[in-house]
Amino acid sequence: MDRPRIAIVGSGAVGSYYGALLALSGMDVHFLMRRDLEAVRKQGLLIREVDRNLHLPSANAYGTTAEIGPCDLVVIALKTTSNAALKQLLPPLLKPETLLLTLQNGLGNEEYLAERFGAQRVVGGLCFICLNRVQPGVIEHYDTSSLSIGEFGRPPMPRTRQIVAMFGQAGVNARLVENLVAERWRKLVWNVPFNGLSIAAGNLNVTEILSDPGLERLAIKLMEEVMVVSARLGHPIPAEFMETMLHRSRTMGPYKPSSLIDHMEGRPVEVEAIWGEPLRQAMAAGVECGRLETLYHLLRRLCRV
Amino acid sequence: MDRPRIAIVGSGAVGSYYGALLALSGMDVHFLMRRDLEAVRKQGLLIREVDRNLHLPSANAYGTTAEIGPCDLVVIALKTTSNAALKQLLPPLLKPETLLLTLQNGLGNEEYLAERFGAQRVVGGLCFICLNRVQPGVIEHYDTSSLSIGEFGRPPMPRTRQIVAMFGQAGVNARLVENLVAERWRKLVWNVPFNGLSIAAGNLNVTEILSDPGLERLAIKLMEEVMVVSARLGHPIPAEFMETMLHRSRTMGPYKPSSLIDHMEGRPVEVEAIWGEPLRQAMAAGVECGRLETLYHLLRRLCRV
Repeated sequence: MDRPRIAIVGSGAVGSYYGALLALSGMDVHFLMRRDLEAVRKQGLLIREVDRNLHLPSANAYGTTAEIGPCDLVVIALKTTSNAALKQLLPPLLKPETLLLTLQNGLGNEEYLAERFGAQRVVGGLCFICLNRVQPGVIEHYDTSSLSIGEFGRPPMPRTRQIVAMFGQAGVNARLVENLVAERWRKLVWNVPFNGLSIAAGNLNVTEILSDPGLERLAIKLMEEVMVVSARLGHPIPAEFMETMLHRSRTMGPYKPSSLIDHMEGRPVEVEAIWGEPLRQAMAAGVECGRLETLYHLLRRLCRV
Repeated sequence: MDRPRIAIVGSGAVGSYYGALLALSGMDVHFLMRRDLEAVRKQGLLIREVDRNLHLPSANAYGTTAEIGPCDLVVIALKTTSNAALKQLLPPLLKPETLLLTLQNGLGNEEYLAERFGAQRVVGGLCFICLNRVQPGVIEHYDTSSLSIGEFGRPPMPRTRQIVAMFGQAGVNARLVENLVAERWRKLVWNVPFNGLSIAAGNLNVTEILSDPGLERLAIKLMEEVMVVSARLGHPIPAEFMETMLHRSRTMGPYKPSSLIDHMEGRPVEVEAIWGEPLRQAMAAGVECGRLETLYHLLRRLCRV
C-alpha cells in the first residue's frame, strides 16, 4: 500500500475531517457523501481549527460507492444507527484484501463488520476529538485530539502500524493501541455521561453540565460505573484517566456532544452503541449499573425519531 | 371539636377536593385561595367524579388567612415548594390547641411544621388519589382513592380517630395509620417512579410510561430501590404492595401525575420532597440508589423555574 486508495464512508464531521487531512497530505481519498455532496463538489471541504483553516478545494466526492469502486482501505465514519446500510454500501469497495477501519462510536461496530465482511479485515479506531459540522462541507475542530487505532481481537500487525503512520503523516495525533476493546471502554467513560446528560438534562452543553453541581456529581458517578464494568470485563482503567477526562471537560468550553447535536437536529442518536450495548455487557457480567440503566431507558425514549 | 372550624391552606386539586367534601358533609370549612379565588367566589367548587358531580355552590373563600382567623384544624395542602410561605400564612389561624394536618407530598413536611409550630399539633395525611384541577374551581377525580392519617412521631390518639371519622363522614375512604413515616414511604413507591419518569422521559402519562418496555422496567427498578431504602430505615413494605401499585397503574388510564402537570404548566415541581429528601435519607443510611439519584439530579435541572 504505497499510496493506497482510500474510501471514506459516511462524511459527517468525523469522516470529512480525517478524509480531508489524509487528502491534504497527498493520499488518494474518495468520499461517499449524501447531505453535503453538492456543496463539497462546489467548494471542497473546509476545516476550521482554533489557529488555522485547512481547505481541500477539490474533494473526490461521490453519491454512491459503485462510483468509487474497489479500494485498499475503507474508513467507516457512518452513524452506527445506519449500520444496516453497510451491507449495501460496502461490497462495491471491497477487494479480498481491503481493510475496514471503523471510527464509529460505542460498542459492537467491529463485531458487526466482522460478522458480515470477515474478521480478518477489521481494524478499529477511536477519535478523542471535538468536531462539529457547522454547515455543508464545513467542519469545526476545537481541541487537541487523538486517534487510537488497533486490530479487532488481535495484537497490532505491520498493517496497523502503516495506518497509524499514514494518519501521523497527515498531521493526526495517531497512536497504536494493543487492546482496542479497552480503548473503546475508555472512550465510553466520557461519552456515557456527557453525551447522555447533554440530552437527558434538557439540551445542555458540557460547560452547563459541569456548572450544575448535581449533574457534575452524576457525571462522575456515571464515569465510575463505566470504569467498574470495564474492569470487570478485564480492562481496568486507572482512576487518573477519569481525572484527566474531567479536567479536559472543564477546559472544553460550551461544547455540544455529537449526540446532542444529532438530537437537536432531529437525527437518530447512537443510543444502542453508546448506552445499550455497554449496559447489556454490564448486565451479562453481573455488574449493577443503575445510573447507566436509567440514562439508557430515558434516552431510548427521548431519542425516538 | 363538635363542629370544628377548619381552614384549608393551599386550594389546588387536593385542598379543594377534600375541603369541598368536608363542607358538603356539613363541616365549617374556610378556604385560603389564590389563583382560583374569584372563580370560586362566583361559582363555588365543582368536583367531577366518574359517575357523579359534586357541587359546593358557596365556598367560604378568602385571599388571606387573617380574614379566616383562628381555627381548630388547619389542613395544609400547599405545594411543598411553597413551604417557606407557611411562616406567614399560619399564625393568624393558630390557637394554642389548633391541629395542623399536612396532606403534602413526599418527606420532610411534618418535620418542617413541627420545628416552626410545635410537634404536638402536627398530624399527617397521605392521599392516594388521582386528582387534576382542570379549570379554576373545577377538580376532576378519577379513581377509587384513600386517605391515610396518622400522628407525627406518636401512635394514634383520640383526636386522630376524630379526624379520620370526620373525613369518613364526608365520604372519604379515610383510615388511621399507626406509622405515618412508613406510609409516606409507601406513597413514594409510586411517586418516585411515575411522577419522575413522566417528566424525565419527555412529558408522558402513566399509560405511555407503562407501554414502553424499557421505562416500565425502570419504573419497577425504581420502586424496588425505594422499598430497599424504606426497609433499611425500619419500614419494610411487602412485595405485594408493589404489585398492587403496578396493577393500579396499569388500570389508571392516561393519567398525568401532578408533578407532570406542574411541570407542563411552568409551576415549581416538588423535587426536594419527592426525590431529594428520600435520596438524602438513603445516602445517610448507606443505601446505594443509582436510579433515584439519576432521576433526582435530572429533575432538579429539568424543573428549574
